[in-house]
Amino acid sequence: MTIADDLRELIRTVPDFPKPGIRFRDVTTLLAHGDGLRRSVAGLAGLADGLDIDSVAGIEARGFIFGSALAVHLGLGFIPLRKPGKLPVATIGEDYDLEYGKARLELDPTLLKPGQRVLLVDDLLATGGTAVAGTRLLRRAGGVVNSAVFVIDLPELGGAGLLAEMEVAAQSIVGFDGH
Amino acid sequence: MTIADDLRELIRTVPDFPKPGIRFRDVTTLLAHGDGLRRSVAGLAGLADGLDIDSVAGIEARGFIFGSALAVHLGLGFIPLRKPGKLPVATIGEDYDLEYGKARLELDPTLLKPGQRVLLVDDLLATGGTAVAGTRLLRRAGGVVNSAVFVIDLPELGGAGLLAEMEVAAQSIVGFDGH
Repeated sequence: MTIADDLRELIRTVPDFPKPGIRFRDVTTLLAHGDGLRRSVAGLAGLADGLDIDSVAGIEARGFIFGSALAVHLGLGFIPLRKPGKLPVATIGEDYDLEYGKARLELDPTLLKPGQRVLLVDDLLATGGTAVAGTRLLRRAGGVVNSAVFVIDLPELGGAGLLAEMEVAAQSIVGFDGH
Repeated sequence: MTIADDLRELIRTVPDFPKPGIRFRDVTTLLAHGDGLRRSVAGLAGLADGLDIDSVAGIEARGFIFGSALAVHLGLGFIPLRKPGKLPVATIGEDYDLEYGKARLELDPTLLKPGQRVLLVDDLLATGGTAVAGTRLLRRAGGVVNSAVFVIDLPELGGAGLLAEMEVAAQSIVGFDGH
């Protein structure tokens, strides 16, 4: 058993959520499993090993769960990329297309210093739209974003390729076929 | 300097958010500080020391940030208490009043076993409405909830008293006067 096989078994697939035809890869069953959660964070830390990073940024809301635990594991600070209207200060924002719908991410740019090297974290890489928006936001705030890590990749949706076009290297623990 | 003094200095106060008259205690500046984040999670673990718990439950979204890192620190699983419509499976829900507005939390009850002892985590305890709703949900799913930990308490708003009426002992790292 690899770490990927181990974790794959803890991820639940829910058909037709949030729309008919989507097979939703649900990490709540993984999170609720103490050893599964610990191994996921250790797996992300393994992917981040050797990267030259100053901070971890996580995408609301499931990216908060993995990103914060990873930041603590690495001894780094955590920068939240939030849904609209949540941050109490002046923010910058990026609108983007989701696999199903539209969304917007916001960032408080004062949380970064110019040149700060940021690792982007989310639970799942699908089309890459969310991660691209997060990368753009962090770069607009002066951050240097060269790498992103995910628990799950759906490689057929091409997210890693989209990120590669932005010179962001995407790595994931578990891949699932289809979407 | 106590850990509370140390962390207090990293928390930003934003006046008149999300409504006029509210002094919003903003933890993003604390999160973005690597040592501050690490000490917050260690502080929560200190409060949880000696408690007889099987799992950690965190309230979306800032409770995910502290709760998940605390769960990994303690070697336990993490149960997300989510905003409506986010969980892909059948859920139970609780509507409640916020200090400013109304809200609803949802839980996938299959993530808990009957009798499972759950520690509730959120970033901030104000009136206690959110934590009470979270406690009710976890108990409806068969969970045993006797304790809750927070980074920040606003004691004048009486949240700890409200939780005590439900036989939940609330502990926090940092208290702020006023609201």
